[in-house]
Amino acid sequence: MTRYKLLIEFDGTPYAGWQRQKNAPSVQHCVEAAVLAFCGETVTLGAAGRTDAGVHATEMVAHVDIQKTVRADQVRDGLNFHLGDAPIVIRDAVVADDDFHARFSCTGRHYRYDILNRRAPAALARNRAWHVIGTLDVVLMARAAQCLVGRHDFTTFRASQCQAESPVKTLNAIAVARQGEIVKVTCHARSFLHHQVRSMVGSLVMVGRERWSPADFEAAFKACDRTRCGPVAPPDGLYFVKADYP
Amino acid sequence: MTRYKLLIEFDGTPYAGWQRQKNAPSVQHCVEAAVLAFCGETVTLGAAGRTDAGVHATEMVAHVDIQKTVRADQVRDGLNFHLGDAPIVIRDAVVADDDFHARFSCTGRHYRYDILNRRAPAALARNRAWHVIGTLDVVLMARAAQCLVGRHDFTTFRASQCQAESPVKTLNAIAVARQGEIVKVTCHARSFLHHQVRSMVGSLVMVGRERWSPADFEAAFKACDRTRCGPVAPPDGLYFVKADYP
Repeated sequence: MTRYKLLIEFDGTPYAGWQRQKNAPSVQHCVEAAVLAFCGETVTLGAAGRTDAGVHATEMVAHVDIQKTVRADQVRDGLNFHLGDAPIVIRDAVVADDDFHARFSCTGRHYRYDILNRRAPAALARNRAWHVIGTLDVVLMARAAQCLVGRHDFTTFRASQCQAESPVKTLNAIAVARQGEIVKVTCHARSFLHHQVRSMVGSLVMVGRERWSPADFEAAFKACDRTRCGPVAPPDGLYFVKADYP
Repeated sequence: MTRYKLLIEFDGTPYAGWQRQKNAPSVQHCVEAAVLAFCGETVTLGAAGRTDAGVHATEMVAHVDIQKTVRADQVRDGLNFHLGDAPIVIRDAVVADDDFHARFSCTGRHYRYDILNRRAPAALARNRAWHVIGTLDVVLMARAAQCLVGRHDFTTFRASQCQAESPVKTLNAIAVARQGEIVKVTCHARSFLHHQVRSMVGSLVMVGRERWSPADFEAAFKACDRTRCGPVAPPDGLYFVKADYP
């Protein structure tokens, strides 16, 4: 048996999310089906993050155990062959230690959220960004976001169905920057609560639209009250960017 | 009658190209159908460039005459409404002079070509870039490309079915740059021959792969011989970026 670390890029549009579920297409199912087709083995993948329906990844990390003796590059190319037309690609496969776990060994997760900030809807960025009409004040958004950095109770930005034991998380960094008509929010933490990034982004857009001041944003955050969260940003603009390991 | 200048973004993947044709979907047809639905008028659009099947645009320019009295922002929003799910968007509509012609008034056209240069196929960039395996030497490509700048006979990089009267064109600028795993080729001229950008890019990739030296590239160009062109790059990576007007 060899454990492989897989780096996976996917367009989440056609999927009900990363996690395998009954009667709905998932990224996990597609990759597991490709492993079965590749080497005849029924496997269960572990992943660094369980992304929601419609959320994308540029470099999700997963691990898989394969009994058959194969080289890592054969795993990569074989899975890509069997993934066929699915918008899921194994960017790389490398041999990992037997105790490597994509979820539990992970020491950092990086997300990016893309906002298409213009009047006209998206054509090229369709399903790849949140379309927000009306100029966003990115400087205000960046200023407001800084109160999130550090160890805090993120109850305001946590989905009601979140299963984490504690709402306390440490956000290492968050940045808001404009690149032409795209506003990018990037953030980094050891781990995130369910819907945390989309909740933070939705509330930051309230600041960008000048409906909330940065002080309003901070007050909502400090209230540790889910009902104080702004409208949760849609999944289309969210990307799992990468995962860190020791 | 008012003439409007339209700035149009589109994903060319589902279309047989810009130009209206029988029995095949085209961008021109979709926009003309949206005009008909918007104001009940049957129109013919003029455009700055007639892109091939699968080629995209970030800002194609077209003009349209509308008899009904409407504001430019109503044209923009009305056409976008009637374009519905088509991956075509009117970025902006502005009133133009009656003698403005998207094609004949155009003094400069800008194209971009995206190459996804990595082992793994595209997931997020599917249909949006040319997938080239094996590291491309971008410095060599950039050096080779410089012989194209200026007024030259571009017969080597001209499709056999090209209908232009002369193969002599002036290329104002061309640049090759890497942004991570994407190699971007950008170029600018008053006008281009049919398949010129894709032919130049295909031949530059021969240089990037070190199958041709920059001297081989220049010799093929100077030969003014279509059979000396490298493999023509696929349409997926090509973007009509913008058009200049006086």
